[in-house]
Amino acid sequence: MMIIMQPGATKEQVDNVIKYIEKNKLTAHSIVGVGQTIIGAVGDSHKVPAHIFESLPNVQSVQRISKPYKLASLQFHPENSIFPLNGFIIGGKEIPIIAGPCSVESRSQIIEVAQAVKEAGANALRGGIFKPRKSPYSFQGLGEEGLEYLVEARELTGLPIVVEVMAVSQMPLMSKYVDILQIGTRNMQNFDLLRAVGDTHIPVLLKRGMSATVEDLLMAAEYILAGGNTRVVLCERGIRTFEPSTRNTTDINAIPVLKSLTHLPVVLDPSHATGHSAYVTAIAKAAVAAGADGIMVEVHQDPPHALSDGRQSLTPEGFAEMVAKVKAVAEAVDRCLVPAKSPLPLGEADRV
Amino acid sequence: MMIIMQPGATKEQVDNVIKYIEKNKLTAHSIVGVGQTIIGAVGDSHKVPAHIFESLPNVQSVQRISKPYKLASLQFHPENSIFPLNGFIIGGKEIPIIAGPCSVESRSQIIEVAQAVKEAGANALRGGIFKPRKSPYSFQGLGEEGLEYLVEARELTGLPIVVEVMAVSQMPLMSKYVDILQIGTRNMQNFDLLRAVGDTHIPVLLKRGMSATVEDLLMAAEYILAGGNTRVVLCERGIRTFEPSTRNTTDINAIPVLKSLTHLPVVLDPSHATGHSAYVTAIAKAAVAAGADGIMVEVHQDPPHALSDGRQSLTPEGFAEMVAKVKAVAEAVDRCLVPAKSPLPLGEADRV
Amino acid sequence: MMIIMQPGATKEQVDNVIKYIEKNKLTAHSIVGVGQTIIGAVGDSHKVPAHIFESLPNVQSVQRISKPYKLASLQFHPENSIFPLNGFIIGGKEIPIIAGPCSVESRSQIIEVAQAVKEAGANALRGGIFKPRKSPYSFQGLGEEGLEYLVEARELTGLPIVVEVMAVSQMPLMSKYVDILQIGTRNMQNFDLLRAVGDTHIPVLLKRGMSATVEDLLMAAEYILAGGNTRVVLCERGIRTFEPSTRNTTDINAIPVLKSLTHLPVVLDPSHATGHSAYVTAIAKAAVAAGADGIMVEVHQDPPHALSDGRQSLTPEGFAEMVAKVKAVAEAVDRCLVPAKSPLPLGEADRV
Amino acid sequence: MMIIMQPGATKEQVDNVIKYIEKNKLTAHSIVGVGQTIIGAVGDSHKVPAHIFESLPNVQSVQRISKPYKLASLQFHPENSIFPLNGFIIGGKEIPIIAGPCSVESRSQIIEVAQAVKEAGANALRGGIFKPRKSPYSFQGLGEEGLEYLVEARELTGLPIVVEVMAVSQMPLMSKYVDILQIGTRNMQNFDLLRAVGDTHIPVLLKRGMSATVEDLLMAAEYILAGGNTRVVLCERGIRTFEPSTRNTTDINAIPVLKSLTHLPVVLDPSHATGHSAYVTAIAKAAVAAGADGIMVEVHQDPPHALSDGRQSLTPEGFAEMVAKVKAVAEAVDRCLVPAKSPLPLGEADRV
Repeated sequence: MMIIMQPGATKEQVDNVIKYIEKNKLTAHSIVGVGQTIIGAVGDSHKVPAHIFESLPNVQSVQRISKPYKLASLQFHPENSIFPLNGFIIGGKEIPIIAGPCSVESRSQIIEVAQAVKEAGANALRGGIFKPRKSPYSFQGLGEEGLEYLVEARELTGLPIVVEVMAVSQMPLMSKYVDILQIGTRNMQNFDLLRAVGDTHIPVLLKRGMSATVEDLLMAAEYILAGGNTRVVLCERGIRTFEPSTRNTTDINAIPVLKSLTHLPVVLDPSHATGHSAYVTAIAKAAVAAGADGIMVEVHQDPPHALSDGRQSLTPEGFAEMVAKVKAVAEAVDRCLVPAKSPLPLGEADRV
Repeated sequence: MMIIMQPGATKEQVDNVIKYIEKNKLTAHSIVGVGQTIIGAVGDSHKVPAHIFESLPNVQSVQRISKPYKLASLQFHPENSIFPLNGFIIGGKEIPIIAGPCSVESRSQIIEVAQAVKEAGANALRGGIFKPRKSPYSFQGLGEEGLEYLVEARELTGLPIVVEVMAVSQMPLMSKYVDILQIGTRNMQNFDLLRAVGDTHIPVLLKRGMSATVEDLLMAAEYILAGGNTRVVLCERGIRTFEPSTRNTTDINAIPVLKSLTHLPVVLDPSHATGHSAYVTAIAKAAVAAGADGIMVEVHQDPPHALSDGRQSLTPEGFAEMVAKVKAVAEAVDRCLVPAKSPLPLGEADRV
Repeated sequence: MMIIMQPGATKEQVDNVIKYIEKNKLTAHSIVGVGQTIIGAVGDSHKVPAHIFESLPNVQSVQRISKPYKLASLQFHPENSIFPLNGFIIGGKEIPIIAGPCSVESRSQIIEVAQAVKEAGANALRGGIFKPRKSPYSFQGLGEEGLEYLVEARELTGLPIVVEVMAVSQMPLMSKYVDILQIGTRNMQNFDLLRAVGDTHIPVLLKRGMSATVEDLLMAAEYILAGGNTRVVLCERGIRTFEPSTRNTTDINAIPVLKSLTHLPVVLDPSHATGHSAYVTAIAKAAVAAGADGIMVEVHQDPPHALSDGRQSLTPEGFAEMVAKVKAVAEAVDRCLVPAKSPLPLGEADRV
Repeated sequence: MMIIMQPGATKEQVDNVIKYIEKNKLTAHSIVGVGQTIIGAVGDSHKVPAHIFESLPNVQSVQRISKPYKLASLQFHPENSIFPLNGFIIGGKEIPIIAGPCSVESRSQIIEVAQAVKEAGANALRGGIFKPRKSPYSFQGLGEEGLEYLVEARELTGLPIVVEVMAVSQMPLMSKYVDILQIGTRNMQNFDLLRAVGDTHIPVLLKRGMSATVEDLLMAAEYILAGGNTRVVLCERGIRTFEPSTRNTTDINAIPVLKSLTHLPVVLDPSHATGHSAYVTAIAKAAVAAGADGIMVEVHQDPPHALSDGRQSLTPEGFAEMVAKVKAVAEAVDRCLVPAKSPLPLGEADRV
């Protein structure tokens, strides 16, 4: 950590900072510049928050040198994390595809779409049962009933299920049935929820907040990892910018940036990142070309009649096309899709 | 609602949209343009989500004309909401000031700062007990113990207390003691929590999400109002932009924009909106000049030793100065601060 | 165009809007809704600015339906523009790569790097001679001397040269020597300059402004096209967002969005879009996977000693690797790089 | 300047950085941390660009400590700049108001509005003659003819005139007639133009680019100051964010931030910063409350018929009301408007 003093800071003020640094078990080293003094605080500082120095008298600013996360950092875990997600492996050479509708709408809907995406090459089934909707007047999800249908769809297809958990109170229900817990964009900094999923052994797909920086995302992952749950998958899903032509702006840069900072697998959700089915395949291909470890995409058998997110949902046919195209790009970057023929057996153990 | 068809949409596709409009109990009116057809959907459409038309074949886009919120709208409630907040009135001519530390750190800290802000003219005391912190290694708040100290500070000073509730599970505790529930920026779209506070009669201070639009904020308020809780105060606290010199960018425009759209009172938090104590007074004055109905500001008796947000906290002396300056601006815009001498008695009834 | 009246607008105010519509040679069609009236203005409206209706009494807002650009629009020019750029073709199946240093620094530097990029597969040479630098104390470019070196490099390698023109006053010099004129991000809305390059027959590479929307970019292209110059290449180079880990945020969505709106070729500049050489290849691959028609990338033989943009410049070896990887992705999406062996002869005619 | 090495940087790489620091006439001081080495570069570094260190091997990042601008900095010029603008003083206690239409549309229009704003209390007249318009099909300004009308309006009212210069080629014309040259938002980084106005003695009103940081704005001012022109007025006019309810987001924080960094006067343009006349007065009041040294506002006698920016223009009556309200706020913050009765005589000398 570097503490930069204001021009004109007195010796007493510099000494005061040094006292603070030492109080926090770090060692202080000063550099007296022409106009300003800089004090380095050396030691294991990732648990020392920068803000405690920021308001000392005549401190201009504090620059953190080491990252504020540790468990998520590639520096302390230099090998990529490769782990099973109930039926397939993520983080390695194989690129899994998670597909399904925004919301579970009915038994027949989810079973039909599950079979369609399975056939087209999906490795996991997504489907929301509690929906975070901007309007209190919009469809809010089927709740527990939806989960039963998802479980049935899993039994029929063998696809593990990815379901968003929106509240700590939903955890007992979710942890009984769900293979991969999703934390949605609006809950990326719901720290109670992060701690709750960190206390389980269920893999977590953590979506980036729509205005979260890459570092914010890694700090959210750190919460989960700090609880002892090591299977965290990061998901880029677009950020909020001034550009109105798409629902969000896909931060494609975040793929190589994250791969340079963390050992955790990174997937991309082109459905939310664009908001239009017409752009989904192009962005799915771009994600794999940029180094993404997986794709999560919305598919609905009848988008115009979807209760939510119809505009950004692919049809099963559109999805099958996307899979074929993503497959070609994956191979061009020396990776491949998860081979369809030999799924790992769906292990109860993994689901604990 | 206006449904704009793609150039080249067929008559069947137009008729299909019309069928949908009518199915939703709205009346359809088409305008056949040179290149494109536009279909107006007339009727009570605020509960009809725009997205259901967006994915019909050859629909280019959907423009909502009426607002998607109703209870929060000035159109359906043309008088400003003026209501008591346990000891003072908000939304009228008088401008209350809420002050206190980011976090309750100890009994003596909160009691000392409560007395200081009371003396300097504050009308309510803020203090966090569960803190949403980006790092799992940072101070996370005193929890229930902190609440006891807050209650003691209230008894000593007569100031009602404003406390952030971060999770539905905290509601039983909070609703027993807290005068004004705060929903923090990271929870503005925690819809379960919005519903939970909507089910109480405790006033709610709803902070704008850091990347929420004005409309998103009003939709979040709509959730609370739809539960029957009418005492919602909106709080602008800065949005995330590309500008790095301040923690957030104060969206001062949001003050007159909100006053033109909603009857709900609007306060501004210059501490989070700037992130630097040096800028707080300037922005507090600007807020009142722009029409804000209140100010919420962080005050700490010893900012350099604050466990959180020290950089943006005023000292009690700085706060007293701010109050004097805000008072002068309030009077220049034909308003005034809440008169210090005759506080309304702290009504148990209001606290339910 | 749809003109949406405020709730409560009078019949006179509606009639006034209708009068205005007709004055602009459009036909008016009203829809009287429950709370609001909407008036459609039908006809050839792309030259009628929306703002003239916006300030009529009790107009709430104006929604443009047809695009405000015409010459750039895919609707009026449904075939992709495919045209020669002095030695290669852009807009078709072949994907050209433009490479070179940020600035021409010396004769030997530009000749060395030109030969290196040529060998590694580049199809054109970029190099700045007048540099837009944030600081008046930074290197400002070699000026005319730099252009001489570029011309010499072209003669030696056969690569056409792409040079940024920063001011109308530079046009006489530039148009004598340059094969492709670049309009930089800070000049995307320098309308005088757009008109000046529109008056030539030299192809133009138009970079998106760092806070320009996709529509702003197309409007800037419209200025050039309106002057009669049809060879405009659009260049995505990253936009400004809140994310600090990269210099800009690559708007990869803009690739498929632009391809759905315009017939003009679209290239991507991964150097400026990321600001770090470590991320350039990943984003170049993503661009091609998403449908880009070309890549423009910064290459320097000795990035640490570059006078500008060293951090984002590839070495010639890094560039050769990038070319190989981009080639594989291009083939996976049924395209290819420009074949190295048979360049079109460098036609004087193209250079006018 | 602090150069932060990557974890794992070798001693040779550290020494290489030190060699570079010394080559740039700075002194190097290393701090060897647990994981990383930091090297301070001490000396007069504002002319040493940070980027030259950024691409040295194993450099992680470079943190500039001293500001990259000097002439604009409050540190080297600790008194606020107070200077005359042909008829009034800016930067002191008195707050001038610049008003007028977006565009000069005709002789009678500009004369009428000039007289109206003069009567209502304006201290200078603005009016565009070359208009930067997004569409090539929109009204582009009257050009030289418009300037003649402005000069006539100045003679009639005694108000100095503020006119945007869009290109270096317009300078001979402009410098003959114009009292205050405006650099528009799209030209804030048109460095040729900045140099050209820096070479005159005509005061410059420099508008912030819509995606420029506060530091970018100060660097643009530095260009003008470096040319020897010391009368630079900075103008906040809103930045581009995700919020769609206003044309731009007023960065009100920029007022106190700029006042803490620079001695140059700062004005705010509430017309562009909001885009709606209904919000202009609120934001003008906020600006003065936050410490702005002046206001620039668009006024048109008949906004619905304005050829540009009608939506954000005040009527003369609305402007008179705004002036009265801004006056009250100015007095509440111990400042005042420029007294109407005794304008300084319009000095030819100032206009050189």
